[in-house]
Amino acid sequence: MRDFVFHNPTKIIFGLGREAEIGSELAKAGVHKLLFVYGKLSIKQSGLYDRVIDSLKRANIEFIPFGGVSSNPILSHVRQGIALAKAERVDALLAVGGGSVIDESKTIAVGVLSNDDIWQYFIGKKVTAALPVYTILTLAATGSEMNGNAVVTNESTQQKFSIGSSFVYPRVSILNPALTCSVPPDYTAYAAVDAIAHVIEAYFTSESRPGLQNRLVESIIHTVIDTTENILNDPDNVEARGEFMWAATLALNGLTTSGVGQYGFPNHMLEHALSAIYNIPHGAGLAIIIPAWMRWYLKTNSNQFDHFAKIIFSESTGTAGINALEQWLSSIGAPIRLANAGIPVTDIPLIVDNAFSIASLWGVDAVYTRQTISAILHLAV
Amino acid sequence: MRDFVFHNPTKIIFGLGREAEIGSELAKAGVHKLLFVYGKLSIKQSGLYDRVIDSLKRANIEFIPFGGVSSNPILSHVRQGIALAKAERVDALLAVGGGSVIDESKTIAVGVLSNDDIWQYFIGKKVTAALPVYTILTLAATGSEMNGNAVVTNESTQQKFSIGSSFVYPRVSILNPALTCSVPPDYTAYAAVDAIAHVIEAYFTSESRPGLQNRLVESIIHTVIDTTENILNDPDNVEARGEFMWAATLALNGLTTSGVGQYGFPNHMLEHALSAIYNIPHGAGLAIIIPAWMRWYLKTNSNQFDHFAKIIFSESTGTAGINALEQWLSSIGAPIRLANAGIPVTDIPLIVDNAFSIASLWGVDAVYTRQTISAILHLAV
Repeated sequence: MRDFVFHNPTKIIFGLGREAEIGSELAKAGVHKLLFVYGKLSIKQSGLYDRVIDSLKRANIEFIPFGGVSSNPILSHVRQGIALAKAERVDALLAVGGGSVIDESKTIAVGVLSNDDIWQYFIGKKVTAALPVYTILTLAATGSEMNGNAVVTNESTQQKFSIGSSFVYPRVSILNPALTCSVPPDYTAYAAVDAIAHVIEAYFTSESRPGLQNRLVESIIHTVIDTTENILNDPDNVEARGEFMWAATLALNGLTTSGVGQYGFPNHMLEHALSAIYNIPHGAGLAIIIPAWMRWYLKTNSNQFDHFAKIIFSESTGTAGINALEQWLSSIGAPIRLANAGIPVTDIPLIVDNAFSIASLWGVDAVYTRQTISAILHLAV
Repeated sequence: MRDFVFHNPTKIIFGLGREAEIGSELAKAGVHKLLFVYGKLSIKQSGLYDRVIDSLKRANIEFIPFGGVSSNPILSHVRQGIALAKAERVDALLAVGGGSVIDESKTIAVGVLSNDDIWQYFIGKKVTAALPVYTILTLAATGSEMNGNAVVTNESTQQKFSIGSSFVYPRVSILNPALTCSVPPDYTAYAAVDAIAHVIEAYFTSESRPGLQNRLVESIIHTVIDTTENILNDPDNVEARGEFMWAATLALNGLTTSGVGQYGFPNHMLEHALSAIYNIPHGAGLAIIIPAWMRWYLKTNSNQFDHFAKIIFSESTGTAGINALEQWLSSIGAPIRLANAGIPVTDIPLIVDNAFSIASLWGVDAVYTRQTISAILHLAV
């Protein structure tokens, strides 16, 4: 076990209908006026929007609606949110949606208390303050509801970058699995890929792999595989939706990486280039990258790949485990080749450029050189 | 998955030598003067006491030493601590020790802010405030370093009762596995039993058993078994000590019980009667109770016992799993019969009376009648 600090103060309220508690949670915390951040029309069509507003009104919480967050949230919209939140002098953010809405809300929360342009925080400036963020989750995948990360795309430069800060952990996140029953099969599959991606990055790249941390990761992967299959067979299976939801939250809340030392996020890094350029769903991009990256990385940590193959897929070699994972990704409807997402092989140099700029920013460009990135992408052809 | 709230705000600082950071953590939080609670001489002999004081002095934190906490902390000593803390107007508690020292510190933290006698909180009064508690852990077992529970024995009535409140979660707990290397083999074994007991109570008695929650429990049990064997073979194995330590913390921090609905603590209930009367180590008492309770409970949840047997011990029946667990407990040096702890069978009526009073307080006396408790204890003869 390496040194670590684990400090995750987010309060999770899990259960059917519990979004009705948001008003009282905010009132307890002394919130008076908030920016109510959401995405598209779906939360209005489902009635969720009205239920949230009802809860806010009962608790006398003033709110400024701010909709239109896109999946892969974009910088220009974040800037609009910051300007609105400043003008309206809100004292908190409420994100109602999936990871994109939460990430944009976290970013606005930082921007409201800063005089610097918000993009500065994505290219190296340290976050030192943020308004409190509250969330009601409608798509389980990113883990943003219980961590201090946010990813935003600068659409003018096609850079998909991230911030990480203890200041942006949500104060309260409400997880009602029934709200995710309308997530269609393709996005359910992408969510599964995302959750698996979150745990396997450190699983394969960390300095140290204590048995406990391996087992926690394997518990989450087994659960994601089982529940995804159940959800695809029966989309209204609230039990499976709930278990999937909690697994996705635990996949990126600091638990599985405590004590493992340094580790990388190479799959996320490479995928961010894909979704920055093509605006494809993050989980779809990950499904393309992961098997390719694994085949490239296999020899670097072959024991761990053998272990993964055995525990997760009852296979006896690392290669067989990677094949089994790829087959499973394909079976749930995720793309596993660039062509499956309509990305031509001739675009690889463009993707390499983008990914290499992230590698440079993250300080991993000595390992992830242009040549290496190109080699990995060619394994996804 | 049943409804749940997970909110564990304790900051864990894990690693060798990290007790040196206690002063700066306290200073950051604005603490000026604290009650420094500890047990016996061991922390002075090891040099830990001096290192902590050095860190406090460097951070200009005033402190009042309060030693003499016993394992199974007693009410009269808690009351002394409350009186001292009130007289000295401390604004925080620092517990340096194992679960007993932490539990006593939590209890003092409640008592300082109350005009009621502290025992009232153990027999039903609701905790509404507490001073902040900080801990440096020297024995991994109880999980008290990351939860809101505290157990104290009223020695005049031989009642070992508990409080549970969100107000007594430690603010910061420092986990240095090297501090546990001096824990002798018998207490290492008792600690292992305690950690396993914490996860199996809900594992067998909860209303709902989502696959994920089963897997998390099994991950912890596998880890405790592996690391305990490694520690007993090589007491200075800091790697195993560290993994054991984090497993014991996760065993009772709310993680494994999220979403499982209602569940009981029957093994703890029965054991509290044993250690209240005989002042035996909690883990030793649990090792006697658990196999007996399991044999009595087997038919109530036989599928889960079969599952446990298969996953943990590769056995095909629940009974074989219980036998394997009992054999393992014995192999690490834990007592598995009342006689092993010098408790005569003629005392069973006395233990029944004590345990039944806890069952009544917990509202489970309809299931745990005197007859039932007696039947379970006779399985431990």
